[in-house]
Amino acid sequence: MKLFLGSALVEEADATVSPFDRGFTLGDGLFETLRVKAGKVLRVEAHLARLAAGADVLGMPLPAIDLTAALAQTAAANGLSEGVLRLTLTRGTGPRGVLPPAEPKPTVVITAAQLSPPLPAARLVIAQGTRRNDRSPLAQVKSLNYLDGILARQEAARRGADDAILLNTRDGVAETSIANLFAVIDGVLITPPLSEGVLPGVMRAEVVAAGAQERPLTVDDLASAEEILLTSALGIRSVATLEGRTLPSTAAAERLRSLIEGA
Amino acid sequence: MKLFLGSALVEEADATVSPFDRGFTLGDGLFETLRVKAGKVLRVEAHLARLAAGADVLGMPLPAIDLTAALAQTAAANGLSEGVLRLTLTRGTGPRGVLPPAEPKPTVVITAAQLSPPLPAARLVIAQGTRRNDRSPLAQVKSLNYLDGILARQEAARRGADDAILLNTRDGVAETSIANLFAVIDGVLITPPLSEGVLPGVMRAEVVAAGAQERPLTVDDLASAEEILLTSALGIRSVATLEGRTLPSTAAAERLRSLIEGA
Repeated sequence: MKLFLGSALVEEADATVSPFDRGFTLGDGLFETLRVKAGKVLRVEAHLARLAAGADVLGMPLPAIDLTAALAQTAAANGLSEGVLRLTLTRGTGPRGVLPPAEPKPTVVITAAQLSPPLPAARLVIAQGTRRNDRSPLAQVKSLNYLDGILARQEAARRGADDAILLNTRDGVAETSIANLFAVIDGVLITPPLSEGVLPGVMRAEVVAAGAQERPLTVDDLASAEEILLTSALGIRSVATLEGRTLPSTAAAERLRSLIEGA
Repeated sequence: MKLFLGSALVEEADATVSPFDRGFTLGDGLFETLRVKAGKVLRVEAHLARLAAGADVLGMPLPAIDLTAALAQTAAANGLSEGVLRLTLTRGTGPRGVLPPAEPKPTVVITAAQLSPPLPAARLVIAQGTRRNDRSPLAQVKSLNYLDGILARQEAARRGADDAILLNTRDGVAETSIANLFAVIDGVLITPPLSEGVLPGVMRAEVVAAGAQERPLTVDDLASAEEILLTSALGIRSVATLEGRTLPSTAAAERLRSLIEGA
């Protein structure tokens, strides 16, 4: 595999980062996961807009390179037809200490991977072990601080589930460890607003634009949902069960997949 | 400078980590900062106990090397008399995805730095921009997810202060971006309990053992404090001002420095 690193493509075996990179020492950076379909990188503009918004929250400059070209170049160099790109942007190296350097030199890494086979409908649980911090601006930033998501995902695996729903600090439903969440309740497709500690997902925005309503959801709301579905840059996934209860419908997920993904 | 990397010392110019290291991609790891005094690494056992407790929360193995020896070796190789070691432990490399590999191979990095000159008494503000997530077990873990601390420290710099106090999601006082916090109120030395979203600082534990009381603190409590002081592995620091109000005393800090640090 070839990686984009800094300003050029390198062979995987030659790709290294510094142990003084603040991405490594403090999780001081951002990332984006982008779908490649028929060799084309999808929704690049929306992903780079979110990256720029995150860099603004972190007070971090964007690198002085054409990221759109770098993404396309990485996909092409790996002959990627159906796949995933991951763009990582960190604040670069820095001396000891929390305060960023005055003039950071960002690190850019783009990696490529083949698309996994389509996943079956997800079995979900509600994470008991941690909460999403809706009181931090980082809840709206796709940052390298991913440990709460990792804890939730590990809990899901322990409990025989595929993924876990994270609640926020006020007991509201936020999202899963890797996807935004929608529920059909009394025939209406609903997703929690960003203020509930929700990452502004690129696919989520498309589903909202297609007519989903934004309002806070409780665990009780989910217990009476006719359908739950998950969205991420990789696609729309149906939910089979929540805490062992079988969801009776997958109709909205199928309709949205057809509408948005052309699948 | 020489770094300890994996299982041996390497020259700084040769020290690299993988861009697939989960420390770099997801902040999936831990760190410790240790004081070196007269060539001796201080409180190693307490730091390694906290590291082990953090690894347990993360479900991550400890590396099969003698970390105590590695710390001493790194200090010696750099001729460090008065300094700081940083030990970083990550879950190592992994494929795409949030779920950790079943058998992770942890990455170990130890870096050394000279001790900075003693800092003057700190000017503090209360961070408006973010909150510490007391609803996550990570609040008690010294993890690589440091962005809330970075945001708070940046806010302090913008507001002309040296550091910022982070409140938890219930408006209680937690700690600063880099230190535990104690306040003298009506003559009693008080620090918030760990359940307020407080990192179990090694120096904090010594000050509690010396008689400080643990109870929740509010912003109003701090507004009436006679003295505020900060503790970290690097030492005990007095506070000059909080939100522009001059703290009238530094007596407790001086007494504790003499008692604990022998300074």
